[in-house]
Amino acid sequence: MNDLKSFASDNYAGVHPDVFDAMLAANSGHTRAYGEDAITAEFNNLTKRLFGPDALGFPVFNGTGANVVGLSALTPRWGSVISSAAAHIDNDEGGAPEKMAGLKIISIPAPHAKLTPELIEPHLAQQEFVHAARPAVLSLTQATEWGTLYTLDEIRQLTAFAHAYGLLVHLDGARLANAVAATGNSLAEYTVEAGVDMLSLGGTKNGAMNAEAVIVLNQDKLSRIHAGYGTDGVSPHPVEYIRKHSMQLASKMRFISAQLIALFGTDLYVHNATRANTMAQRLAVAVNDIPGVEVVAPVEVNSVFARVPSKAADEVRAQFPFYDWDDSGVVRWMCSFDTTEADIEQFAQALTTACLSHNTQG
Amino acid sequence: MNDLKSFASDNYAGVHPDVFDAMLAANSGHTRAYGEDAITAEFNNLTKRLFGPDALGFPVFNGTGANVVGLSALTPRWGSVISSAAAHIDNDEGGAPEKMAGLKIISIPAPHAKLTPELIEPHLAQQEFVHAARPAVLSLTQATEWGTLYTLDEIRQLTAFAHAYGLLVHLDGARLANAVAATGNSLAEYTVEAGVDMLSLGGTKNGAMNAEAVIVLNQDKLSRIHAGYGTDGVSPHPVEYIRKHSMQLASKMRFISAQLIALFGTDLYVHNATRANTMAQRLAVAVNDIPGVEVVAPVEVNSVFARVPSKAADEVRAQFPFYDWDDSGVVRWMCSFDTTEADIEQFAQALTTACLSHNTQG
Amino acid sequence: MNDLKSFASDNYAGVHPDVFDAMLAANSGHTRAYGEDAITAEFNNLTKRLFGPDALGFPVFNGTGANVVGLSALTPRWGSVISSAAAHIDNDEGGAPEKMAGLKIISIPAPHAKLTPELIEPHLAQQEFVHAARPAVLSLTQATEWGTLYTLDEIRQLTAFAHAYGLLVHLDGARLANAVAATGNSLAEYTVEAGVDMLSLGGTKNGAMNAEAVIVLNQDKLSRIHAGYGTDGVSPHPVEYIRKHSMQLASKMRFISAQLIALFGTDLYVHNATRANTMAQRLAVAVNDIPGVEVVAPVEVNSVFARVPSKAADEVRAQFPFYDWDDSGVVRWMCSFDTTEADIEQFAQALTTACLSHNTQG
Amino acid sequence: MNDLKSFASDNYAGVHPDVFDAMLAANSGHTRAYGEDAITAEFNNLTKRLFGPDALGFPVFNGTGANVVGLSALTPRWGSVISSAAAHIDNDEGGAPEKMAGLKIISIPAPHAKLTPELIEPHLAQQEFVHAARPAVLSLTQATEWGTLYTLDEIRQLTAFAHAYGLLVHLDGARLANAVAATGNSLAEYTVEAGVDMLSLGGTKNGAMNAEAVIVLNQDKLSRIHAGYGTDGVSPHPVEYIRKHSMQLASKMRFISAQLIALFGTDLYVHNATRANTMAQRLAVAVNDIPGVEVVAPVEVNSVFARVPSKAADEVRAQFPFYDWDDSGVVRWMCSFDTTEADIEQFAQALTTACLSHNTQG
Repeated sequence: MNDLKSFASDNYAGVHPDVFDAMLAANSGHTRAYGEDAITAEFNNLTKRLFGPDALGFPVFNGTGANVVGLSALTPRWGSVISSAAAHIDNDEGGAPEKMAGLKIISIPAPHAKLTPELIEPHLAQQEFVHAARPAVLSLTQATEWGTLYTLDEIRQLTAFAHAYGLLVHLDGARLANAVAATGNSLAEYTVEAGVDMLSLGGTKNGAMNAEAVIVLNQDKLSRIHAGYGTDGVSPHPVEYIRKHSMQLASKMRFISAQLIALFGTDLYVHNATRANTMAQRLAVAVNDIPGVEVVAPVEVNSVFARVPSKAADEVRAQFPFYDWDDSGVVRWMCSFDTTEADIEQFAQALTTACLSHNTQG
Repeated sequence: MNDLKSFASDNYAGVHPDVFDAMLAANSGHTRAYGEDAITAEFNNLTKRLFGPDALGFPVFNGTGANVVGLSALTPRWGSVISSAAAHIDNDEGGAPEKMAGLKIISIPAPHAKLTPELIEPHLAQQEFVHAARPAVLSLTQATEWGTLYTLDEIRQLTAFAHAYGLLVHLDGARLANAVAATGNSLAEYTVEAGVDMLSLGGTKNGAMNAEAVIVLNQDKLSRIHAGYGTDGVSPHPVEYIRKHSMQLASKMRFISAQLIALFGTDLYVHNATRANTMAQRLAVAVNDIPGVEVVAPVEVNSVFARVPSKAADEVRAQFPFYDWDDSGVVRWMCSFDTTEADIEQFAQALTTACLSHNTQG
Repeated sequence: MNDLKSFASDNYAGVHPDVFDAMLAANSGHTRAYGEDAITAEFNNLTKRLFGPDALGFPVFNGTGANVVGLSALTPRWGSVISSAAAHIDNDEGGAPEKMAGLKIISIPAPHAKLTPELIEPHLAQQEFVHAARPAVLSLTQATEWGTLYTLDEIRQLTAFAHAYGLLVHLDGARLANAVAATGNSLAEYTVEAGVDMLSLGGTKNGAMNAEAVIVLNQDKLSRIHAGYGTDGVSPHPVEYIRKHSMQLASKMRFISAQLIALFGTDLYVHNATRANTMAQRLAVAVNDIPGVEVVAPVEVNSVFARVPSKAADEVRAQFPFYDWDDSGVVRWMCSFDTTEADIEQFAQALTTACLSHNTQG
Repeated sequence: MNDLKSFASDNYAGVHPDVFDAMLAANSGHTRAYGEDAITAEFNNLTKRLFGPDALGFPVFNGTGANVVGLSALTPRWGSVISSAAAHIDNDEGGAPEKMAGLKIISIPAPHAKLTPELIEPHLAQQEFVHAARPAVLSLTQATEWGTLYTLDEIRQLTAFAHAYGLLVHLDGARLANAVAATGNSLAEYTVEAGVDMLSLGGTKNGAMNAEAVIVLNQDKLSRIHAGYGTDGVSPHPVEYIRKHSMQLASKMRFISAQLIALFGTDLYVHNATRANTMAQRLAVAVNDIPGVEVVAPVEVNSVFARVPSKAADEVRAQFPFYDWDDSGVVRWMCSFDTTEADIEQFAQALTTACLSHNTQG
C-alpha cells in the first residue's frame, strides 16, 4: 500500500499523526455517548471561538451527511436548493439530498463552478409560483469543486442577494481549510462574517479519518424557522433530531470531536491545507510544458484540472490513480496534506514519458 | 350494475344528484385553473362561515391526500404522529404518510378506536429524547374507524392534553358529517371550537364524486410554524405548496369546490349522513336476533361491526359485498346515503338464511 | 364566468359535454370501489385495444400523479430520471418527483424541449459511478412543453438509445392526443410501437374533468423489475400499490374511467385535440403581423410561444389571461378544445390595439 | 473522564486497544478511497469465511445506517417491515427507516422482544390488500433489545415462516457477538444457516470506534429483486448505491474495515462479548437481594432489566449513568467489554445504600 502515489482525491491520503494521537488520547475509559461527553463539549466551545458566540457545532461522519443535515434544517418541505451544476450535492452524493430529504436541486451551470447573482436571478423569477418548489436555500462551495475560490466580496454579494430574496445560505466547506490557507482569510470571514447561515465544515479531506461538522452560524434565523415546532430553547436542537434520523449521530462521538479539535483547535488545518495547495501549484508548473497537456482552470487551492491525451492519461493512471472530470478529456489531479515534492516529480516524469510516447506513436 | 346492494363501503355508492347538478352548473366556459376560480373562492367563504373567520379551505382529491397534506403542514421533519392503531392513516393508506412525507406513526391500540389521554401519555414520556422522532401531532378520527364517536368533552380534553405537551391536533373527518348528523353538534363544535388545529373534511363518502378538503383551523399556530420560511402573509400558502407536491392540486378545481359547496353549503351533508346513520341503526336491529350473529361495537354512525359465522359471511358476501374487519371473524357493514330500507331487509333476510343453513349443517 | 376568454392553459376550459354525459351514465347505483367496477374493467379492455394486449391501464387523478406513479414503478431507489430542462416533471410539479419518490432528475437543456441522443450521451458517461444516482429512466414529453413534436423516427431512435444503455423510457403524454391529431400517427405508434415502456396518458387537458392514466406498455420489463418482490402474476400489481401510497387511488374510480372511455373509446380525443391545434395555427397567423410580436417556436400542436412587448402583454392579459413562459419576454398562449374562431379574433384584435398603443407611446 | 462508571450503554465504553492498533496499522500512505482498498478487500474475504462464499460485506458508520441500508435493499417502494415493538428500528432510530427510506414499520408487541409466528400471522392476513403497504420483510434482533436470545430453532422457524409468506428476513445484529458468546453458536449458524437473508453486523458496541457492516447473506434472492434494474453482475452493487445515497459511504473506508477485521477476524469479538455477558450475570446476582430491586427479564447477554424504586435509581444514576427503559419504573443496565468486577461491586454497593436509605425514609 505504501507505494501508491495518488492524485485521485484528498481522500486517498490517510490520517494525520496528530489527529490519530488525539483519538488515542480520547480513548480513556467510559464517557457519555451520543455527544454528551467532555470532548464534544470542548468542540462546541471551539466552534464558538472560531465562528462567534452564537455558533453551534454538530459533528457528523461525512460530507454528504453534513450537507444533507444542514440543508434539511434550512429548507421547508416545499423548498428547493440552488447550487452550481458542478456542486457536490448535485453530482457526487448519489442523489442523497433528493432521496433522503426531498430536496429539489436547481442546478445552474457556472464557469469554474462559481455562481453569481446574475446567474441565479432568472431562477428566482417565479419564486412564488406554486407549480415549482420554492427556492429556499442557496448552496455555495468554497473552495469550489473546480478548485476555484470565491473572494470575500463575492460571497458577501451572494449572501446579500440571497437574503434579499428570502433565501438562506449554506456553504459546503469540505475544503474550506484550503481556502483559508490560500488567502489568509479566516474561517469566520468566509462564513458567518460574510453572511453564510449554515456551514458543512470538512475535516476528512484535511487529514481526519472521518470527521465533519454541521455548523449553525445564524441561530436566530434557524430559531425563527423552527420555533413554531416547540423546540426553541430546548434540547434536543432541531439539528440534533435531523442528524439522528439522517443516520449521522455517532454513538462514540468523542472520537469525531477529538479529530475536529486536533485539526481546527490548532493551526494544523492551515498547515495541512497549505501543503496540499502548494503541491498543486508545483504540479501545475511541472505539467505546464508537457506537450499535449493543458491546464484548464485556475489553480487556487489543491487541485489541477487539465486536458490530457487520453492514452497518456490511461497509461499514467495505472500507476498514479486519478479521475476523469468529465467526458471532454479533462482530468482532475488532487494533492493532499501528505503529497511530497518527490511525488510531484515522479508523476510529472511519468506523464511526460507517456505524452511523448503517444505523441511519437501518433 | 344497478342490482348490486353493497354494505362494503360508503364508497360503493355513487354521486348524489344535487352534487352532480352542481358540477354541471360549474361547467360553463373558461375559468382560472388551479383554484383561482370564483367557485373555489365561494368555497373559501363557506369555509369561513362553517369554521370561523380564520379558517382556510384547500380542496383535494381524496382522503389519503387530505390527511397527508394536512399532517405534512403540521409536522416537522423530525416529528411523529400519534394515532389510534385502527386509524386510517396507519392501516388503510398504503403507508402514504411514511412513504410520501416521512411521517412516523406511533399507533396506539385503543378500545373501539377511541384514544384517551391515559393511553397517549406513556408515549410522551420521552418527548425530548433524540433517539426517537418527536411526537408532534395527535391525529384523531371522528367518527372513528370503528363507527364510534368522541363526545365534545372527550375531544376538548384530548386537544387540551395534546396542546399542553406541545402537540398540534389533526382530525380525520372523512365521516365527520356522520358525527354531526348523529349528535346535532356542528362541524365547528367538533373541530375549531374543541381545539382541533387541522381538519380533513370528507365529501366523497357523503355523496360527492371525489372531493375532500384540508381545512386549516388555527392559522396562528401554522404561521408560527412556517413563518421562518418567509411565506407568512404571502401567497402561495404553505398548504398550497404542500398540496401541489403531494399531487393533490386539481387543475379544474372548480369541479371539486362545487361538490363541496353542494354538500356543505346546504344541509345536504346532514341529510345524507342521517340516512346512512339511520340505516345502520336499522341494520343493527335487523341482524340482532339472527342466530350466530353478534354486534360487537356501539352503532353510533353508519357502520355495524359484527361477528358472523365465516361460512355464512362468505355466502352472503357473494351477493352483498362487504369486508372482513380483521382475522377474528369480525366483519364491517357500512350504510351510505342511498341505502334503502329494502336493502336492509333483503340483506338481513339473506344473512338469516345463510346462518340458519350453516347452523343446521353444522 | 362565461365571459372569460383564456389562452392561459387548456386547463382553463371546462368539461366536454360527452364526458359529462359519460359520468352521469356511470352514476347508477352501487358498484365496487377502488377500480373493481365494470367501467374500469371496460377501460382496461380499451387500454388493450389502443396499446396492445399486454398493456395495462391505471386511472389516476392528475398528470403529476400519473408521472410520479409511472416513474416510481420504473426507477430503483438509487436511480435518476433524465428529462429535458423544460419538462413538466422538472419545472411544474413542485418537486413532487423528488419529494414524493426520491427521484433525482437530470435535466438537460434542449432546443424547444426536444432531447436527442447526442444531448443525453454525456450524462451517461459515468452510468456505473457509485457517487451519482444511476440514470435509470429517460422521460420524454409528447407533445413537448414547447408545443413541438418528436417524429416517430426520433422517438424510436431515443428509445433504442436508452434501451442500449439499460434505461427504460417513460413518456409524459399529457398532450399526446394533440400529437395524434396533428400527425395522424396513432397512440400506439407513438408509444408501445416506438419502444416506450410507460405512458402518462392525459385526459384532463383534452376535455375531461380530472382523468389521467398510467399505462404500462411493457409488462415484461416491469415484471423483471418487480418479480423478485413476489408480486409477479398476482394482484395487486406493483403499480396499484404505488398508486395507492401516492394518494392517487380514487375510491369512486368508475367516474375517472368513464371520462377516459368517453375520450379515448371514440374519436372524441382526436376531435378535441384537432380543434385546439387548429385554433393555435390560426392564432399564430393572426398575431404574425402584429408589430412587436414574434412567434419563437414552431406551432405544431395547440400552443403558440411568442415574444411580446411586456406592457402590451400585461394590458391584454387582464382580459385574456395567459402566462409568461420565462423571464425573457416570451409568453405562452394555449388553445383548448372549446376555443372558438371568435376568441382568436377578439384576442388578436386586443393584442394589436395594445401593441400599437404602446408602440405609439414608445 | 476516567472516573465514570457507566451502565447506560455499551456505547459509553471506548475502543478496544487491538482495534486501535489495527487502525494505526492501516494508516500507512495512500490507498484507494471508498472501499477499493486492500483492507476492505480483506474484509470482504473475511465476510465469506464467516458467512459463506456467497456473502458480501459492506462497511458502514453506525447501526442505524446498517439497518436502513439493509432494509432498503430488501423492501420494495410499497413494502412494510415487521418488527417487534421493542425493536431499535422502531424506537431508537429517530424515525430513520420511515424518513429516509419510506419504510413503514408494523410493530408488534412481543414478550421480552421475541417475536413468534403466532404473533406475526395476524398481520399477514391481508398481505395482498392494496390499502396497506405490503409486508415484505421480517426484521429480528439478536440479541434482542430486552437482552434475550432467540434459539437457533426459533430463528429457523421464523425464517421458514417468513419465507413461506414471501417475506425476506433481516437481522439486526448490533449485539450478535453477545449471542455468539453466550451460546457458542456461530455467526453463520445464527444467520445464513438459519435462513436470514440480510444482516446488520455490529462492531461499535463490541469495542470498535464506529464500524458496522451490512452483510448480504442471500445474494440469489437479492439478485432476483434487483436484476430487472440492470445491475446484476455488475458493479456497483445495489447495496453500494444505497449505502452511498444513505450517506453511509466512508471515503477512508480502510479504517472501518480495519476495525471490523480486528474484531471479527480473530476471537476478539467473542472475548469482548463474553466479558460483557459475564459482568451482566454477575450484576444480576449482585442486585438480586437488594430490597426493592427486581430483575424483570432473563439475563441472557449483557444487559439487566430491573424495577428499582425511582428515588434510589435517580440517586445512583448521578454517579453511574443509566437509562430508564420505559415509564413503568423499569431501568436498563448494560455491561460492556471493559466493565470490571470492581465496577459491579461499587455499583451494587451504591444501589444497596440508596435503596436502604429510601426504604428507611419511606
